Amino acid sequence: MTKSEYRAIETYMLECMSDAAHDPEHVYRVLGIALELAKDFEGVDYDLLVAACLLHDVGRVEEFHDPSLSHAAVGADKAAKWLAEHGCDDAFCAKVRECIRAHSYRTGGKTEILEGQLLFDADKIEASGLIALTRTMAFSANLGRPMYVVGADGLVDESENTPPTSLRHYYEKLRKVSDRMYTARAREIVERHNRAMDAAVAALVGEVNEARIGLRSLDALLED
Amino acid sequence: MTKSEYRAIETYMLECMSDAAHDPEHVYRVLGIALELAKDFEGVDYDLLVAACLLHDVGRVEEFHDPSLSHAAVGADKAAKWLAEHGCDDAFCAKVRECIRAHSYRTGGKTEILEGQLLFDADKIEASGLIALTRTMAFSANLGRPMYVVGADGLVDESENTPPTSLRHYYEKLRKVSDRMYTARAREIVERHNRAMDAAVAALVGEVNEARIGLRSLDALLED
Repeated sequence: MTKSEYRAIETYMLECMSDAAHDPEHVYRVLGIALELAKDFEGVDYDLLVAACLLHDVGRVEEFHDPSLSHAAVGADKAAKWLAEHGCDDAFCAKVRECIRAHSYRTGGKTEILEGQLLFDADKIEASGLIALTRTMAFSANLGRPMYVVGADGLVDESENTPPTSLRHYYEKLRKVSDRMYTARAREIVERHNRAMDAAVAALVGEVNEARIGLRSLDALLED
Repeated sequence: MTKSEYRAIETYMLECMSDAAHDPEHVYRVLGIALELAKDFEGVDYDLLVAACLLHDVGRVEEFHDPSLSHAAVGADKAAKWLAEHGCDDAFCAKVRECIRAHSYRTGGKTEILEGQLLFDADKIEASGLIALTRTMAFSANLGRPMYVVGADGLVDESENTPPTSLRHYYEKLRKVSDRMYTARAREIVERHNRAMDAAVAALVGEVNEARIGLRSLDALLED
């Protein structure tokens, strides 16, 4: 891939990215991680890897406006169409399409293509750790969701049966990202990231509960 | 204070709170922390402490719509007026007013009233740790601000001279909260919270830089 071909794909990606939770920085980070993971393998098709990583989330806008759509399915088609219109051959377009289609759990998430596996793992690393936790907080805030709810005891409800909150997303989704990675190195990275994420959540819940415990003395202070 | 007087003040507070970053949970946490800090002192006026804590942010809406206003000054006046209209005597209203006015750095933040000092310290504890960090992320997302920007080396810019980002707010503000607390116990709590916050930010910046470092291999891959 030449520098000018890279710039053309990047420009198209930037045009497609518009919602706050999946900003271009996420795309660059996924590309950077995938390039690191690729160093453990021989015969990587870097043109395929770079194109698939840069374009993997171009369908986010469509899913944002219509949640019944899968951004991976929409994005796979958009990316393949754009690449075909810009001179890439059919075999290359088909491989990019499969890599992007398989990067999401929702569309099955299975591919035999190495570059698609590297994209999948890099994207899942991005769904781990402090990056994932803080993106969840930001995304929840945009949706008007609370960070947590309190249970009958006045403390943070740590179950998965609460209304949607940032913490519920953590318990239900973020902690389970490492379940199905292709590469051992990606699994190690996710596990390391998640230790830091778990520590941050434990500190957060601890801070909230410290404050909420103080409220228990109210009952004794208030007269009937 | 009777339970029904408490409910009346609480109801007024809930009517006044509407922006996402200063939700009622923040108010309850500040009250809970202040009640804990109060246990170290004799002769605390709990009616004053409870009223001041519950009402300390009722001026947030006005500041949100007109950032030239100070929520502490506006809220102090709103709270004193509401309490006077609901049967509180002048001396009590004046003390609540001073406590609320002095809870913010912006309005000077100095008071000799113990209950005002406890409110100040409790509010600053809320501006520390993981709660503060995640609220910053959520607030920045609402404002459309990025989490970070990258410098010329392609890594996270950790200086205070960047455009507004969540991380800049951390370097510039969150890390400096403990500078001026009234009570030793509050300072200890803030310092403990901030160790967890610093660890979380270090992990976050580490994760981003791991990914950004991967991008450096791009140059060697792209042809001219």
